[in-house]
Amino acid sequence: MARGRFITFEGGEGVGKSTQIALLAKALAERGIDHVVTREPGGTPGAEALRALLLSPDNDWGDRAEALLFAAARSDHVEKLIRPAIESGKWVLCDRYLDSSRAYQGGAGGLGDEDILELHLIGSMGLLPDLTILLELDPSEAARRADDRDAGAADRIGAKASDYHADVRACFRALADADPDRFAIVSADGTADDVHARVLHAVDSMAAAR
Amino acid sequence: MARGRFITFEGGEGVGKSTQIALLAKALAERGIDHVVTREPGGTPGAEALRALLLSPDNDWGDRAEALLFAAARSDHVEKLIRPAIESGKWVLCDRYLDSSRAYQGGAGGLGDEDILELHLIGSMGLLPDLTILLELDPSEAARRADDRDAGAADRIGAKASDYHADVRACFRALADADPDRFAIVSADGTADDVHARVLHAVDSMAAAR
Repeated sequence: MARGRFITFEGGEGVGKSTQIALLAKALAERGIDHVVTREPGGTPGAEALRALLLSPDNDWGDRAEALLFAAARSDHVEKLIRPAIESGKWVLCDRYLDSSRAYQGGAGGLGDEDILELHLIGSMGLLPDLTILLELDPSEAARRADDRDAGAADRIGAKASDYHADVRACFRALADADPDRFAIVSADGTADDVHARVLHAVDSMAAAR
Repeated sequence: MARGRFITFEGGEGVGKSTQIALLAKALAERGIDHVVTREPGGTPGAEALRALLLSPDNDWGDRAEALLFAAARSDHVEKLIRPAIESGKWVLCDRYLDSSRAYQGGAGGLGDEDILELHLIGSMGLLPDLTILLELDPSEAARRADDRDAGAADRIGAKASDYHADVRACFRALADADPDRFAIVSADGTADDVHARVLHAVDSMAAAR
């Protein structure tokens, strides 16, 4: 059985990650490629329970506890869903993964990138995606899309100040620039179909490189 | 304002930690020493929510996720309760702390001690107790006491096999032997008052050393 592929989608809020994952899943199905769509934090019953604790506005986790909880949720997700799926030959499409922790808890939060990577090494033996699609959008356009969608119902992290989200965007770009073999930076401007064509190109480039 | 003291109680199940903490709290009150009694996992609303996830038999956390969750609960506990209490001059008496993670998730579980210490450094900036009382009991006597108390209602960790608990006991002893300045090994044989006299002696020795 050939090993599957592990593809993650990253980017700030409102860039269209879930729409693009759904379009890629449809394209994979048309090609007869068995796949799983999942998300972080979450994806397994234990990790979804942690997601509820993490995103609830009732809790006020410090930066350090928050980073540990994301790493714990990821550990459960990798052990019980992602790794078994890849090993059984499936492609895994995941909405957010390690790089979101690096951008939100690391760069724009209080922890250093080396701490986040150390937690990932301990929690998930450092499993990295084969391909990470970074969807990038002009910040004002991203804010407009997120506002349209949430209509004021932002969660605890979504509700943080706009400077924080600008920092997050800069962090994602720095991570992608530092690891061009794993990352594909994809513009999220234009229609969903325009963006989908760019995503498919990145996926086919990954497949060709292996 | 003088800094308070941080005293943890460690040992396997059934050695009498909570009884001894209650007796020490009473003795401190009689001496007019302001103090807080707390426990792990737990002690703050966030950490108690994690305690419920950790100890519920419904969840089957892997070793790595479990270690991260204990570290996350400890991070919240240290940041919101333990450190502020010590800094305000109070003594903190805590039922289990870092050494339980080292013995249960590290030594007797799947992770190395260096991983547990690394998680503690990231999560709680490595805060160590001024004194750790290790209560030691002959394993068969400890099992008898735990059976009497729980009457079959063991939690997910208490229900593990007896070899595991023997490993835990050996790990605690090794940790204490390696750090005699912080640990006091106290025999839990005899009556609660017998043991309390030994605990008070250890506490007074710590106070004299500072």
